[in-house]
Amino acid sequence: MHSQRCYTLSASCPDRVGIVARVASFIAEHQGWILETSHHADSEAGRYFMRIEIKADSLPFHLAEFRQRFQPIADEFHMDWRITDSAVKKRLVILVSKQEHCLYDLLARWQSRELDVEIPCVISNHDTFRGFVEWHGIPFHHVPVTPENKRAAFAEIRRLFEEVKGDAMVLARYMQILPSDLCQAYPGRIINIHHSFLPSFVGARPYHQAYQRGVKLIGATCHYVTAELDAGPIIEQDTVRIDHGDSVEDLVRYGKDIEKTVLARGVRYHVEDRVLLNGNRTVVFR
Amino acid sequence: MHSQRCYTLSASCPDRVGIVARVASFIAEHQGWILETSHHADSEAGRYFMRIEIKADSLPFHLAEFRQRFQPIADEFHMDWRITDSAVKKRLVILVSKQEHCLYDLLARWQSRELDVEIPCVISNHDTFRGFVEWHGIPFHHVPVTPENKRAAFAEIRRLFEEVKGDAMVLARYMQILPSDLCQAYPGRIINIHHSFLPSFVGARPYHQAYQRGVKLIGATCHYVTAELDAGPIIEQDTVRIDHGDSVEDLVRYGKDIEKTVLARGVRYHVEDRVLLNGNRTVVFR
Amino acid sequence: MHSQRCYTLSASCPDRVGIVARVASFIAEHQGWILETSHHADSEAGRYFMRIEIKADSLPFHLAEFRQRFQPIADEFHMDWRITDSAVKKRLVILVSKQEHCLYDLLARWQSRELDVEIPCVISNHDTFRGFVEWHGIPFHHVPVTPENKRAAFAEIRRLFEEVKGDAMVLARYMQILPSDLCQAYPGRIINIHHSFLPSFVGARPYHQAYQRGVKLIGATCHYVTAELDAGPIIEQDTVRIDHGDSVEDLVRYGKDIEKTVLARGVRYHVEDRVLLNGNRTVVFR
Amino acid sequence: MHSQRCYTLSASCPDRVGIVARVASFIAEHQGWILETSHHADSEAGRYFMRIEIKADSLPFHLAEFRQRFQPIADEFHMDWRITDSAVKKRLVILVSKQEHCLYDLLARWQSRELDVEIPCVISNHDTFRGFVEWHGIPFHHVPVTPENKRAAFAEIRRLFEEVKGDAMVLARYMQILPSDLCQAYPGRIINIHHSFLPSFVGARPYHQAYQRGVKLIGATCHYVTAELDAGPIIEQDTVRIDHGDSVEDLVRYGKDIEKTVLARGVRYHVEDRVLLNGNRTVVFR
Repeated sequence: MHSQRCYTLSASCPDRVGIVARVASFIAEHQGWILETSHHADSEAGRYFMRIEIKADSLPFHLAEFRQRFQPIADEFHMDWRITDSAVKKRLVILVSKQEHCLYDLLARWQSRELDVEIPCVISNHDTFRGFVEWHGIPFHHVPVTPENKRAAFAEIRRLFEEVKGDAMVLARYMQILPSDLCQAYPGRIINIHHSFLPSFVGARPYHQAYQRGVKLIGATCHYVTAELDAGPIIEQDTVRIDHGDSVEDLVRYGKDIEKTVLARGVRYHVEDRVLLNGNRTVVFR
Repeated sequence: MHSQRCYTLSASCPDRVGIVARVASFIAEHQGWILETSHHADSEAGRYFMRIEIKADSLPFHLAEFRQRFQPIADEFHMDWRITDSAVKKRLVILVSKQEHCLYDLLARWQSRELDVEIPCVISNHDTFRGFVEWHGIPFHHVPVTPENKRAAFAEIRRLFEEVKGDAMVLARYMQILPSDLCQAYPGRIINIHHSFLPSFVGARPYHQAYQRGVKLIGATCHYVTAELDAGPIIEQDTVRIDHGDSVEDLVRYGKDIEKTVLARGVRYHVEDRVLLNGNRTVVFR
Repeated sequence: MHSQRCYTLSASCPDRVGIVARVASFIAEHQGWILETSHHADSEAGRYFMRIEIKADSLPFHLAEFRQRFQPIADEFHMDWRITDSAVKKRLVILVSKQEHCLYDLLARWQSRELDVEIPCVISNHDTFRGFVEWHGIPFHHVPVTPENKRAAFAEIRRLFEEVKGDAMVLARYMQILPSDLCQAYPGRIINIHHSFLPSFVGARPYHQAYQRGVKLIGATCHYVTAELDAGPIIEQDTVRIDHGDSVEDLVRYGKDIEKTVLARGVRYHVEDRVLLNGNRTVVFR
Repeated sequence: MHSQRCYTLSASCPDRVGIVARVASFIAEHQGWILETSHHADSEAGRYFMRIEIKADSLPFHLAEFRQRFQPIADEFHMDWRITDSAVKKRLVILVSKQEHCLYDLLARWQSRELDVEIPCVISNHDTFRGFVEWHGIPFHHVPVTPENKRAAFAEIRRLFEEVKGDAMVLARYMQILPSDLCQAYPGRIINIHHSFLPSFVGARPYHQAYQRGVKLIGATCHYVTAELDAGPIIEQDTVRIDHGDSVEDLVRYGKDIEKTVLARGVRYHVEDRVLLNGNRTVVFR
């Protein structure tokens, strides 16, 4: 995390000789000052991943020109790539139900600018947090979801997301399963926190499942949402120790602490363009 | 944590044969149903510690009579003891400065009744969080502290604490050193979160100290405040991994996550009468 | 862990008023000095669990008489119970294949008496570690297992185990699936280490499965073996962080470190009678 | 960790534009295939650090020629640099006293080639492990250390280290304080494991100190030895949770598990040239 304005270039491409040399030379030719750089070669997949932070004012041009000048290199190496400007804040739409821990946690981070994003609105299937959200000066939309109106409700959510030009949706313990067309519309842009250490305990009531199985640690998983439930690319996970004395309620309580921490880490990695997709896995340049 | 009303007996005494038998027999004679019981013998100190949760409605009398009937046993074994009723909520006064993470975290837990206490007021040396606190319906007192008014300011804090009949003060990243008379007035009742893994990095700017020393993990410590700075009995600690790529700002950010978690755990242990003092150490019956 | 000789009473029974009182009074009547005591009430199952360590020389009689005198109490409360003497070392038979990390680790602990047991023999389907084991003065049996001789091989293993009067078998990365009759013959006496965080990645090649799923932590699980593969009661688990840069080989390497640690903890809990079965879950009085 | 033969270039230099471009271009010009690359800019110190693994057979020349050709670039950027060949195994001399856990652990890793080094000899101030070490085919030297012979003893150790052309000394719970001239003779080449989470509990009997302070976690620290006791650059650390029920002996036991793990990680990082010194701190490219 750098306090100064920077451009972040992230890219992946088939691995071969000369990628770093070509990209780094391009940056150096224009006197670009590299703040941070990360690389990963997946030798099994034969694919190369990189993320480079360049001090914005070290370059003699802006992003549009950077994109134009860099495109031939990207083409030459068949890159999937993007470059972002830290001065242009990402716009996160938060979806929430009736549990407060992730919402409070995200808004505290936003409040302190630790999470340096715009939150154009919060959407919920309950009206519970209207006052709390609005107190922060953030618009709140109550979109009830029932078995009957599900299609319309998610169309409305999609409309709201488009209207505010959202960059990503964050499901902060949003207790509804998204329809698959919505998942497919925003690949790598919908971030969920699942309250188990996936792939254990997929689906409903994972803490009850964990209790029944008698595990000695419970976990939480932050992942991108895909059409297949709880099966998307994992961004971040963590676990916490429990023991025989802990009831399901205790598991829920311990779980909340890792849920909010894991979600916050995952969101930050996403916001700082640290997550690159590698099939159904992720490269996370922490 | 039990959802039903219970009495919690906690006691320590010189170790000898027959303590458990005597106490458990007393409870059984009155048909007391034990929900949870924990024991610890400190063989070095020759001292015995216990904590017993009894289902309130299993006993044929209330706390006052319990106290009267139990006193002879306590005398016989020279016990330090207390018994509390889960239906009588503890009253926590929170002190805060300008950092929000611990405050948001505690209020979220209070909001959801995970932290089942009264918060009669929040006191701060800055006015920053007035709106946030008051939105929750909790009174907020701004008590500025300067080198000149320090004595008067802490007298006022003490007055406020007494006025609301506070059971404990929680220093939720309150960036002032308490005068020693205040510390001594409330032994085992003032809970602090220190932003290092004590006894490393006592005093000011522990994350800077940690950065300079090049440690690979940072930590946080929840402890009772005593007159000696950062030297009181430790209730809870935790650590998180960092690496060479993390700046002091990153350490601060990672640190906040463990500070709030460690503080919340320590507060819960205290509120549920799980912490017994053993000299300058603690017995924590988790 | 106490250095002095002690008797360890462990028991479970239907929960009701007066269990602790009755047991503790029995001990106190005979001047038994309690070193450590742990209790757990499973309110869902309505079952009570306890473990009590009594200083051996504080009692006026030996184990045989203790058993006789205690039996009426056990009958009254319908207890499953046992009492063991720390002076009578448990006899662990270790089964191993070609990986050395768990074997070296267990023998180092045995060598230093941290793991205070007898190891009457080590059995392997390969001859790899004969020299190493024999150097420690421990008999080594090579019992090859092939698809054809599987029945005879496990009959031989069972014969060896009975011959040396083994108390428990420890599968220290023994890469063979035990036949179900063997599993059923020794319930709660065969300890396995599985190289995943169960219930994730049951069966073969869990590190490959973990790599493919892109998890961010890997784990290990110590459990009692039952006829159903990798589904027995879990004694202990732990996890370790990995990232996108780690190959399957790296996972295997990181995994070894938690496998041996988790196995060693599980074995110690078992040896010190800290593990009580509660259906397919365990109560572990650490 | 790559199974194929590679050259590992590690370097640090004053930060400026064009370092990566220059180095990567040099490698690409000779068709060098980069397997893994890590970079770190210390903006406070104004220093750049890098580590690059190149597939050995992708280059048209050997190390000697690489060194010759690369020297002008190193000079231009004022680099501290080295390049090593994974086919040339490092030679580690292990020093040990009477505790076996780190020794067993290192030899198990060496045995399985997970730790891919030569161990030309083990040196000890006790004769305890002669048989165990020699059984592995490794020479064992008993060099007793007394207050009287200390100077001569360490001269002998130094002679043995030179004689076997040791690359690094590993103090695997070697319970002697090295004389400062020895420390100064091999900066960044003597690796120690200290049984506390430094900077807490410097010096003797750290577990006793930790017990007295009542900490809730204990730790271990792997660091390079310098003339100032326990103050050298930290390579790796970890912690483990304890509680009030744990005696000093329990702390020692739990501690051993993290000591050996932390030492093994630190040694591996060193052996794979992943550790670069940055003043009294380290950059560890894991």
